[in-house]
Amino acid sequence: MKRITLLLSIILSGIYNGYTQQSDSLMIRKISDELMTNASCYENLRYLCKQVGPRLSGSSNAQKAVEAAARMLREAHADTVYLQPCKVPHWERGDKETGYISFAGGKKYDLHLCALGNSVATPADGIAAPVIEVKDFSELDQLGEKVKGKIVFFNHPMNPLFINTFNAYRESGIYRGRGPSRAAKYGAIGVLVRSLASNIDDYPHTGSTSYNDSFPKIPAVAISTRDAEMLSIQLKKRTQMTAYFKTNCRSLPDELSYNVIGEIRGTESPEQIILVGGHLDSWDLAEGAQDDGAGVVQSIEVIRTLKALGVKPRRTIRAVLFMNEEMGGKGSDAYLASAKEKKEQHLFALESDGGGFTPRGFSLEMTPEQRNKILQWKPLFLPYGVYDFSNEGSGADVGKLKVLGTALAGLSPDSQRYFDLHHAATDTFEAVSKRELQLGAVNMAAFLWLVSEYGL
Amino acid sequence: MKRITLLLSIILSGIYNGYTQQSDSLMIRKISDELMTNASCYENLRYLCKQVGPRLSGSSNAQKAVEAAARMLREAHADTVYLQPCKVPHWERGDKETGYISFAGGKKYDLHLCALGNSVATPADGIAAPVIEVKDFSELDQLGEKVKGKIVFFNHPMNPLFINTFNAYRESGIYRGRGPSRAAKYGAIGVLVRSLASNIDDYPHTGSTSYNDSFPKIPAVAISTRDAEMLSIQLKKRTQMTAYFKTNCRSLPDELSYNVIGEIRGTESPEQIILVGGHLDSWDLAEGAQDDGAGVVQSIEVIRTLKALGVKPRRTIRAVLFMNEEMGGKGSDAYLASAKEKKEQHLFALESDGGGFTPRGFSLEMTPEQRNKILQWKPLFLPYGVYDFSNEGSGADVGKLKVLGTALAGLSPDSQRYFDLHHAATDTFEAVSKRELQLGAVNMAAFLWLVSEYGL
Repeated sequence: MKRITLLLSIILSGIYNGYTQQSDSLMIRKISDELMTNASCYENLRYLCKQVGPRLSGSSNAQKAVEAAARMLREAHADTVYLQPCKVPHWERGDKETGYISFAGGKKYDLHLCALGNSVATPADGIAAPVIEVKDFSELDQLGEKVKGKIVFFNHPMNPLFINTFNAYRESGIYRGRGPSRAAKYGAIGVLVRSLASNIDDYPHTGSTSYNDSFPKIPAVAISTRDAEMLSIQLKKRTQMTAYFKTNCRSLPDELSYNVIGEIRGTESPEQIILVGGHLDSWDLAEGAQDDGAGVVQSIEVIRTLKALGVKPRRTIRAVLFMNEEMGGKGSDAYLASAKEKKEQHLFALESDGGGFTPRGFSLEMTPEQRNKILQWKPLFLPYGVYDFSNEGSGADVGKLKVLGTALAGLSPDSQRYFDLHHAATDTFEAVSKRELQLGAVNMAAFLWLVSEYGL
Repeated sequence: MKRITLLLSIILSGIYNGYTQQSDSLMIRKISDELMTNASCYENLRYLCKQVGPRLSGSSNAQKAVEAAARMLREAHADTVYLQPCKVPHWERGDKETGYISFAGGKKYDLHLCALGNSVATPADGIAAPVIEVKDFSELDQLGEKVKGKIVFFNHPMNPLFINTFNAYRESGIYRGRGPSRAAKYGAIGVLVRSLASNIDDYPHTGSTSYNDSFPKIPAVAISTRDAEMLSIQLKKRTQMTAYFKTNCRSLPDELSYNVIGEIRGTESPEQIILVGGHLDSWDLAEGAQDDGAGVVQSIEVIRTLKALGVKPRRTIRAVLFMNEEMGGKGSDAYLASAKEKKEQHLFALESDGGGFTPRGFSLEMTPEQRNKILQWKPLFLPYGVYDFSNEGSGADVGKLKVLGTALAGLSPDSQRYFDLHHAATDTFEAVSKRELQLGAVNMAAFLWLVSEYGL
């Protein structure tokens, strides 16, 4: 039986690779030509970055982003545009943080730092204590109670040997996420974390930390990679060094916010939903151009392009711009709850949350049969720079739809530049290339269209 | 016979793809790890851009670049470093150009413009004449004598539909190269050319023009893409518009300059040369970071990395940093002449002159048999982002070695951002990503090493 299936699949694939593939490639060329000529995604991104600006969930800017995205979806001529309510945490940075290292002789060196998202603030006059550097949790565990009353400095650089920088991010990310509680467990009073950045510069990179309720919540800041290098060198030279920092952040009551949704109704199987999305919120330090303004405007662009071409998709194509990806994922929680309640049938969901850089592939999270079907389409993507379907995974927002049995995917842009600017003030509109952004959207629209035509 | 050859090649490829490929992939991993950790290419590029700066051939900065590159090759521990003399043209821009459009009512609009390389200057008080816009040579030919006494405006945008922007560059490049003489043939007195740029901004992009000696040499400038758009709109609205511009460039006597060469002597077949190179000169308006500081420092990095790993290549690996690619190619002419004279055997030559962006492939210019051999190595490059060996071609400098029967190749970086900054003031060090630059060098070093091990 297996052999017959294999044979059949080879024959079918042969048929597919002949006639159909040719007409599909013409359709994708049309998508590309329309998009590379008339796309509005770059100007939409300019608006999100420059007119709305940083849009941390719960903020008034996040609400402006909701309104702007709904307008953009209407202008893209989505058949339906609506808001989906969700309650989101509301954390505020407050006044800019300050901090420094002071040496034995009284000399001070100001640090480039920022509070981690979710972090508690220091007391009003800040905290000061000797600094102890650790590279990882095993070094911390070895020190144990020796860090009591001290400030722990997690200095774990992103490993430059990973060619895909997301692998280095995952490896180092645990110190930002779990470092503060791990240090508090041994009595530390504060934490400095080396920024999760692939370059050496003066910009601190924020991001969420997550407290373990079993231990005291201690204040935590990210310091720039250059400061981390300097601090590490100084700690090797000197017997004692004190760090001081003061943060002014606070958590406010949850806020009502929204996912923004726009769709093109399918003509043959409208009940089957094919989702494309990114997240509308960004960190407060950045314009959120690459993270994830890019994914938002690309998702809207998929709708615009298909409508502009007069495509009548067989299945429903839905763009979802999720709220609160950066600080809890309450938007995607609400989306999933609603999908369950309405018993919606989600066939496929594609996320763009790896930046608007030149696309290289799609990560896949689905059955082997679905994966094989998609691999037959590989030659169709090749002229548009997409060749790599080898990675597993999808994205933080659409990933939750796995429980519905939805086939999942994520756009994989080139990752070399992403962590130079991720969650930092350098994530600006100027760092985005119009053509790269558009090329990502071309591949996303092509993928959505193929799934809409052929199912999975 | 053909069948036996095919069979044999399949068997050999099977053998290759098993045991050998595994050890090769370990070697390439070593190259990557060494380079991603200890590369000096990014700091060398910083020096070329910030300490040397623009380095048009014939200028004193070009001489500084020669000295700097020789030092960098010595620091990379090349076995031999030497200079190869060549006579280069010496064209100077002189004082910054000025120009404007004036409307019937006397209103003026300043243009962002620059003289094209090789262009003759205007008279000391500039030239002024009505402007006629053409999209291409067929429109010009239709106008014929109507352009007499006028300034012709070649407004041929780079076609955004080409995914590989180099294809659009080739298509539009003829107006910069041959436009001035084609317009002079019909009696035009000057030429404005829309900058060869893929984005809309205020920076003019220079580049060589090439006069046809049968016609008068008329002054020619590039205007920024935003000015070109504006001018085209105004020309459609108004019956008459006059352009004025003044350029101050001049051609001086040829200068003595140099290619810079460094090599690792082969252990088994030192007489077989495997060349890697880029060009040392840049346009005068730019730091020449992507064009082609990147190719220069990557070529040096190949030497540094192999020496740092203690690799003893079977064949001689030679880095050649060519002078005068931008304005005549006299460096590569001299190189070829010397290679012929010394009867040097050039097995393979690889050029990096498409920018230091994230690498996607190598273009090849060689026999089908050589190409097939290289295609067997494809899986070795894939972990480092290189998958595309489908393009024909190599580069302007190494291309000349074709007459020696040398197999040629060119690094193909991602092309989406290149023509935003090519030949313009925006081609700065800051536009280069350290990881992207290094990743290009990883693939170059791997390619050189494979050819050195296995021949072609």
